Amino acid sequence: MAEHSAYWNAGKETRSREEREIEILALMQQQLRYAYEHLPFYRRHYDRAGFSPDKVTSIASFTELVPIITKQMLREDQAENPPFGSYLGSGPVDICRIHGSSGTSGKPTLYAISREDWDYISDVMAQAFYTSGVRPGDVVQLATVFSLFMGGWGSLLGIERLGATAFPIGAGETERQIELMWRVKSTVLITTPSYALHMLETARSMGLDPSTSPLRLGIFIGEPGSSIPGTRQALEAGWGIVVRDMATTSEMTPWGTNAECELGHGVHVMQDEVWTEVVAKDNSNRALPDGESGALVYTHLRRRSQPMIRFYSGDESHMTHEPCGCGRTYPRLPMGVYGRLDDMLLIRGANVYPSQVQRSLLSVPGTGVEFKIVLERQGALDKATVRVERDPAAKPDNPAEFDGELMNRIKRKLKNDTNINFEIEVLPPNSLERAISKAKRVDDRRPRFRP
Amino acid sequence: MAEHSAYWNAGKETRSREEREIEILALMQQQLRYAYEHLPFYRRHYDRAGFSPDKVTSIASFTELVPIITKQMLREDQAENPPFGSYLGSGPVDICRIHGSSGTSGKPTLYAISREDWDYISDVMAQAFYTSGVRPGDVVQLATVFSLFMGGWGSLLGIERLGATAFPIGAGETERQIELMWRVKSTVLITTPSYALHMLETARSMGLDPSTSPLRLGIFIGEPGSSIPGTRQALEAGWGIVVRDMATTSEMTPWGTNAECELGHGVHVMQDEVWTEVVAKDNSNRALPDGESGALVYTHLRRRSQPMIRFYSGDESHMTHEPCGCGRTYPRLPMGVYGRLDDMLLIRGANVYPSQVQRSLLSVPGTGVEFKIVLERQGALDKATVRVERDPAAKPDNPAEFDGELMNRIKRKLKNDTNINFEIEVLPPNSLERAISKAKRVDDRRPRFRP
Repeated sequence: MAEHSAYWNAGKETRSREEREIEILALMQQQLRYAYEHLPFYRRHYDRAGFSPDKVTSIASFTELVPIITKQMLREDQAENPPFGSYLGSGPVDICRIHGSSGTSGKPTLYAISREDWDYISDVMAQAFYTSGVRPGDVVQLATVFSLFMGGWGSLLGIERLGATAFPIGAGETERQIELMWRVKSTVLITTPSYALHMLETARSMGLDPSTSPLRLGIFIGEPGSSIPGTRQALEAGWGIVVRDMATTSEMTPWGTNAECELGHGVHVMQDEVWTEVVAKDNSNRALPDGESGALVYTHLRRRSQPMIRFYSGDESHMTHEPCGCGRTYPRLPMGVYGRLDDMLLIRGANVYPSQVQRSLLSVPGTGVEFKIVLERQGALDKATVRVERDPAAKPDNPAEFDGELMNRIKRKLKNDTNINFEIEVLPPNSLERAISKAKRVDDRRPRFRP
Repeated sequence: MAEHSAYWNAGKETRSREEREIEILALMQQQLRYAYEHLPFYRRHYDRAGFSPDKVTSIASFTELVPIITKQMLREDQAENPPFGSYLGSGPVDICRIHGSSGTSGKPTLYAISREDWDYISDVMAQAFYTSGVRPGDVVQLATVFSLFMGGWGSLLGIERLGATAFPIGAGETERQIELMWRVKSTVLITTPSYALHMLETARSMGLDPSTSPLRLGIFIGEPGSSIPGTRQALEAGWGIVVRDMATTSEMTPWGTNAECELGHGVHVMQDEVWTEVVAKDNSNRALPDGESGALVYTHLRRRSQPMIRFYSGDESHMTHEPCGCGRTYPRLPMGVYGRLDDMLLIRGANVYPSQVQRSLLSVPGTGVEFKIVLERQGALDKATVRVERDPAAKPDNPAEFDGELMNRIKRKLKNDTNINFEIEVLPPNSLERAISKAKRVDDRRPRFRP
């Protein structure tokens, strides 16, 4: 492959924090004024909260004073101001694209993106994929659903702008997908961690050795999985690739502003495109210092159609400003996004993320990659079961004995890591359903109480 | 909607035939020289046939002298020169996109399109959709699979270049698709005729009246159906829209060069982009005069990556140069493409196209839109059965009696139109499988003989 620059936009990516934050503050102030003057959604929200844009005189005051917005607020505003809400843009907007949230929790919210923003987004997405190691000359297999879901479309846009070859085959028809990967010699795979694991199993079942695939790099989106050490290791060893994590949330398109560089020390946060804050879980106006874990709050600094200003994503992480060897001066989320606060489970009074369970399971040899957590109520108590599969590579002489021992090892490991006594069911390989996009790994059957 | 010009490119679309054909001849000669000098596939083929580009001195001699190419030749060349064949382009090609044939007959052939051609294609596709009536301001629902299939991608490219709003939701999840059509107020639908019929039934089953949908225009691709009067009528009346037919075949991307104008008198053939000839079925070097039905042979005049020169598509149609009231000077295929010669069935010595059967069925009141032809061998004879559904609107008091009478009417109609004695099975509504892309309407179970 030809020599390429280390950066998509060296001046922007390596400037000092001070210089960058001067621009960021100016962009914040512009964006707030624009929203207040032109977008009724924000004007109502700010007036009600007694906030006005001229109060923001520093980055610190932005966090302290600007009220957050939530997905629920966007949903309600779209219901009252169909179809795109009163936060679409000023005047008649030349909408280039309509997409939407995947709508797992009910009616999807709709995304309408102006032609100008669509062009802008392609440049930021190109920077993201360049940061994660894609170069012109790569053949990039986009194994992502192309429908409402922004994951595939944003990826395609970035790959085209970057100047690599796009092979947007979509998700599904997994055997054909794998045959074609070898045939066109795809060098980069973009998909969800769940689907990449499923593809891995499928390739093996076809008699192929995925570690000899033409892939050199996998960039994983849509789920937090690829920053979980066990999952990362399974993907890296299985496919023989370097794994990189990317993505914020679809509302924040260009969602690639959390992108891991070639050193793989967590995702860089492109603060001059989407301003990203870590705030206290119980107070969204209190910034947390480096190293402390909290809720991520995101702000579009440049988008004008449906801009998100202090969007409370529900993502949880912590940040560091320690310099990275890659030379980019952006801060990092050293462990990526762990998961959604919404995903957090409360089991017999203890908090646990599905991603924590996944991490523990993957550290126990003999365990397959797929799992499901089933929660039920037994009398006054929660019953929590983890269903896992035996690793297909295990091939024990005595499966029953093997599964019994595996069950005990998993039970101890989970008790140790989460302090919860899970029931464990070990199933034969391929018993659980596979996802072609985001996996659904929790089945919560407990009756709901609303206080 | 604002006033727009009647043409995408008035000078090009309305110039005289003479002027156009001067340019076309020059483009043909350039394309032949390029292919002979740079693409081994064509050099071998032309050398073997004793043809050389300098022999073409007129449009007539292009047809008489240039040997055709077929899909089978492309498939073989890709097998020998993987992955993209020896007709890809000169030197290292900057490939923007990889797609492929849908691969219904085995391994898909792969399409690799250069960045320069991709940009060129978007302009021709925009001209096609503009010709069929799409304007900036339209909200265009693309209910097409986004995977290998070029239909969706070419449409999206054209709609974006044209400056309308694209809503590329893909095919499938039909109920959600319909809810969102109403919610975002889609004004144009692009899909296959089969899927549009399925969406129609689904909308009704959801209690909606599709004739009051926000759609004003439907452009149908991927199958010949929308030029068949019965299908067109079902789509126009059902959805309350104007129906326009578009498309050649995916090898010929920009495949929109057969596009119907607002007058709806057949598809215009954009001869200065893809040169389209009607030739004798038994002699592909013999041009047929206007009005005579034959095989369509297509030539890319401007594409440089995987250009098709005299590609024998298997499509059947006839042409006219009679002026059209729209002012475009392009000739027309007054009845569109009837079908593929490959699709033609031989039943007890008689020839029949599935589209002919469809046309006959749709003219019999009480018949639903879906059907299937099943061919079996009984002793030495072919047994041909047509399975149809009762129209869900019929709601007879006595279904058995109704179906019996319908069966007899269909039997007589088909015998009259095709001279074949079909067995008829009338099924309740929604018995047959629905397609989300191209329909498979023939199930040929007869043993194959290879002479």
